[in-house]
Amino acid sequence: MQKTLAEIAAIVKGRLIGDGGAVITGISGIKEAKEGDLTFLANPKYLPLAAATHATAILVGKDVAIEGKAVIQTDNPSIALVTIAGILKDAFSPKIKGVHSRAVIEPGVVLAEGVGVGPNAVIDEGAKIGRHTMISAGVYIGRGTVIGENCLIYPNVTIRENIVIGNNVIIHSGSVVGSDGFGYIQMGEQHMKIPQAGTVVIGDDVELGSCVTVDRARFDKTVIGKGTKVDNHVQIAHNVRIGDNCIMVAYAGIAGSSRIGNRVIMAGQSGIAGHLTVGDDVVIAGRGGVTHDLPTCAKVSGFPAQDHRKALRQDAHVQRLSEYADEIKLLKKKVASLEEAIKTSHD
Amino acid sequence: MQKTLAEIAAIVKGRLIGDGGAVITGISGIKEAKEGDLTFLANPKYLPLAAATHATAILVGKDVAIEGKAVIQTDNPSIALVTIAGILKDAFSPKIKGVHSRAVIEPGVVLAEGVGVGPNAVIDEGAKIGRHTMISAGVYIGRGTVIGENCLIYPNVTIRENIVIGNNVIIHSGSVVGSDGFGYIQMGEQHMKIPQAGTVVIGDDVELGSCVTVDRARFDKTVIGKGTKVDNHVQIAHNVRIGDNCIMVAYAGIAGSSRIGNRVIMAGQSGIAGHLTVGDDVVIAGRGGVTHDLPTCAKVSGFPAQDHRKALRQDAHVQRLSEYADEIKLLKKKVASLEEAIKTSHD
Amino acid sequence: MQKTLAEIAAIVKGRLIGDGGAVITGISGIKEAKEGDLTFLANPKYLPLAAATHATAILVGKDVAIEGKAVIQTDNPSIALVTIAGILKDAFSPKIKGVHSRAVIEPGVVLAEGVGVGPNAVIDEGAKIGRHTMISAGVYIGRGTVIGENCLIYPNVTIRENIVIGNNVIIHSGSVVGSDGFGYIQMGEQHMKIPQAGTVVIGDDVELGSCVTVDRARFDKTVIGKGTKVDNHVQIAHNVRIGDNCIMVAYAGIAGSSRIGNRVIMAGQSGIAGHLTVGDDVVIAGRGGVTHDLPTCAKVSGFPAQDHRKALRQDAHVQRLSEYADEIKLLKKKVASLEEAIKTSHD
Repeated sequence: MQKTLAEIAAIVKGRLIGDGGAVITGISGIKEAKEGDLTFLANPKYLPLAAATHATAILVGKDVAIEGKAVIQTDNPSIALVTIAGILKDAFSPKIKGVHSRAVIEPGVVLAEGVGVGPNAVIDEGAKIGRHTMISAGVYIGRGTVIGENCLIYPNVTIRENIVIGNNVIIHSGSVVGSDGFGYIQMGEQHMKIPQAGTVVIGDDVELGSCVTVDRARFDKTVIGKGTKVDNHVQIAHNVRIGDNCIMVAYAGIAGSSRIGNRVIMAGQSGIAGHLTVGDDVVIAGRGGVTHDLPTCAKVSGFPAQDHRKALRQDAHVQRLSEYADEIKLLKKKVASLEEAIKTSHD
Repeated sequence: MQKTLAEIAAIVKGRLIGDGGAVITGISGIKEAKEGDLTFLANPKYLPLAAATHATAILVGKDVAIEGKAVIQTDNPSIALVTIAGILKDAFSPKIKGVHSRAVIEPGVVLAEGVGVGPNAVIDEGAKIGRHTMISAGVYIGRGTVIGENCLIYPNVTIRENIVIGNNVIIHSGSVVGSDGFGYIQMGEQHMKIPQAGTVVIGDDVELGSCVTVDRARFDKTVIGKGTKVDNHVQIAHNVRIGDNCIMVAYAGIAGSSRIGNRVIMAGQSGIAGHLTVGDDVVIAGRGGVTHDLPTCAKVSGFPAQDHRKALRQDAHVQRLSEYADEIKLLKKKVASLEEAIKTSHD
Repeated sequence: MQKTLAEIAAIVKGRLIGDGGAVITGISGIKEAKEGDLTFLANPKYLPLAAATHATAILVGKDVAIEGKAVIQTDNPSIALVTIAGILKDAFSPKIKGVHSRAVIEPGVVLAEGVGVGPNAVIDEGAKIGRHTMISAGVYIGRGTVIGENCLIYPNVTIRENIVIGNNVIIHSGSVVGSDGFGYIQMGEQHMKIPQAGTVVIGDDVELGSCVTVDRARFDKTVIGKGTKVDNHVQIAHNVRIGDNCIMVAYAGIAGSSRIGNRVIMAGQSGIAGHLTVGDDVVIAGRGGVTHDLPTCAKVSGFPAQDHRKALRQDAHVQRLSEYADEIKLLKKKVASLEEAIKTSHD
């Protein structure tokens, strides 16, 4: 990127205070920024950092001025940053122009206009890839799988057969979509595999991190609703249904057949047991382990997960156990004395 | 699949009530089933669902009839389903016919009859692949590794050098077998790597999920016994020995050199510390963290893991801590009153 | 390997008691060793095992003799083992001679002398690979990434664009370096992706296990200091900075922007929340979940993590809760009796 401050101010519809001709070549955090960088100040408490930054210009809120610094005032500096970042995206996203000579495109595959396929990617029979979607090196797309437009599938992702993926979906390296659900019928000592004949349906604007696993349904489908964002090492078991715009942080796991509402937040290392229903807008704290259904808007923590405020009070009691133990000991002593005193006074 | 109800009834040795000429084209869950599907009813409590299903026919228990529905009565509808599903398996399992022109087969590799190798799979020097085993796209098989018959290795799996894998083994995408164990000798501040010169031996009928890691032994071998089923994101460290027909649910991890008996169940997010011995038929509940040896048939939960019933009682006490704290407070007050009363009466 | 005991004794500068002409063909654990193996005895408590081993020779400490066995006495048998093991390394490390005809080397790539590149590895435009580094089959190296000398990148690893990796680094299969950090700005119900424009810098002598994820920074860089060893399934989020010679055991996770000192040990399934500072030489026990800053040398466990000894005492109290509950019940009874007695005596 090579843009002047005047150009950037125009893009974010902001008010520039400073030299419109200054050239911006990158974006950076306020502490790490150097000459030529654009940075941003979303929270006034970081004002001292802004005064000390080496950035060439700072995106700030309305009416914020920083002495000796070029600033662009906007209603929301974070959104302004995202806008600029979106423009910068071209500089960061992998560009794959056309189908690499070393890609493997099997018979019956349909590639829409503008699709990029990297070297050693394999697109198996009958798969359909939407416009401008990028299939990176080493990716495997199974038979009959349908991927929407403008998706970005990073290297070494595996998407199995007959999966349906929406538009603008991003899937990071090492992730696996559509592996068999973990289902067996016990016969004597042996576990007999139940074929996992279903599929996975992923909505628009979903992002899956690295080493994420999404199992295909036993029958029917495993679903991830549109706009849901999934961090690294997350496990989504067979027949799970996740609503829209959820957040699942690293190592969050959902066991088979559970249904999760919209806008649910699962913090890191949390879990939801199988066959449960979790309502909209639920928040599960880090390490929270959900073992029963949760109503809309529940905020839970601990294992087994319970109301977050109740869990905090309980933790506080646990912290004071040593005190309670001392108090019990003292009470025992006092009661013994009282018993002795009563006995004496009755003698 | 295209089979008539009469054909299916014959296969499962069941008694058909309904039109033997009706055609079945798929199988599905009782709720999701549609015209043409075969479904099953294993538990009478779902009878109302069976009455409402759109399935063309239902596998049911002996003497179960559902008004207006075609049913096939069998001793065990679940097993009947598995039988039919096994026949359907061909429709769901990836078929790889022969060695793809874009597979890489290095010198000295032995491929038995009927082996399929997908595009960009790499089979390194001296590896041996048994009859009818499928090596999918992007898989790497290391030097000297031996894989049995009828195995199914999904895309982008890595199996390192000199590993031994039995028959009918399934390994899902992203998994790694035979990476180095995590072993170092501390010398001053530095950690010096101990070469991991051992191997991994995987028994017949084992299934490994996606993103599973099985480290090779320092010396000797890491072992997974026959029939053991392993879910996604499981970690099996170096020199671990797991018995037969165990179940390890997602994120279950076993640290180095522990030995696990037969038919052990590790629920999700559970763990076993290093150098422990866990007996046959042990059940470790979700999140259970085992820190000491466990005898045969132990059922444990919590961290550190303890007898499950004891852990439940303990949890119940923790839940009541607020009550106990109130009782202690009240007792203190009463004891103070009593002390005052005694003092007064002695005056 | 084919070495005589005399040769091995010379290499480790040890004193041989036994036949210098005996030939060693491998190394093994003391229990698993067989004829032709060299083994070692680091701890005298295993002396009975040493007496019973089938190994041809044993590396032992100064002045240790074992009747009927060939031994090589050295100051530190563990280090001697590592030395021999290092020589054996050639037998265990994958050797890739030159650039495989099926590797994909894009324009502008610089491969130093002695680099090996396996089949179907992809090295993207402008990447630089240092001397004698091995890039195994199916690995993807992104544009402009720089990898140092003598590194060993195992099959199916993904290293994204513009990453910097030092010398002697080992990365195991399935791992992903440089995937996007998990960063969004919430706008209404939607989560808008913040481009992750930073990089990852990995120091010399780092080892990453299998299925490890290291996210690139939002801006600036995610850092892993030299000599740090990382086990399977570890998650290192964006902008994290880890010091030198740390140990991170399986499933340890660090959330975004936290800074970890040198020589920190994170045991299995532990975690550190985001934006924290953890001092040098901190030890976090298995399952420990750190939620606040930790000073140098802190030893913590539990969740939320607290001083390890305090956590142990607290656990002991929790174990005794049933006892405390009984004591409270008894006290209530006694106090009621006392109250009754006092009341009677006052009547």
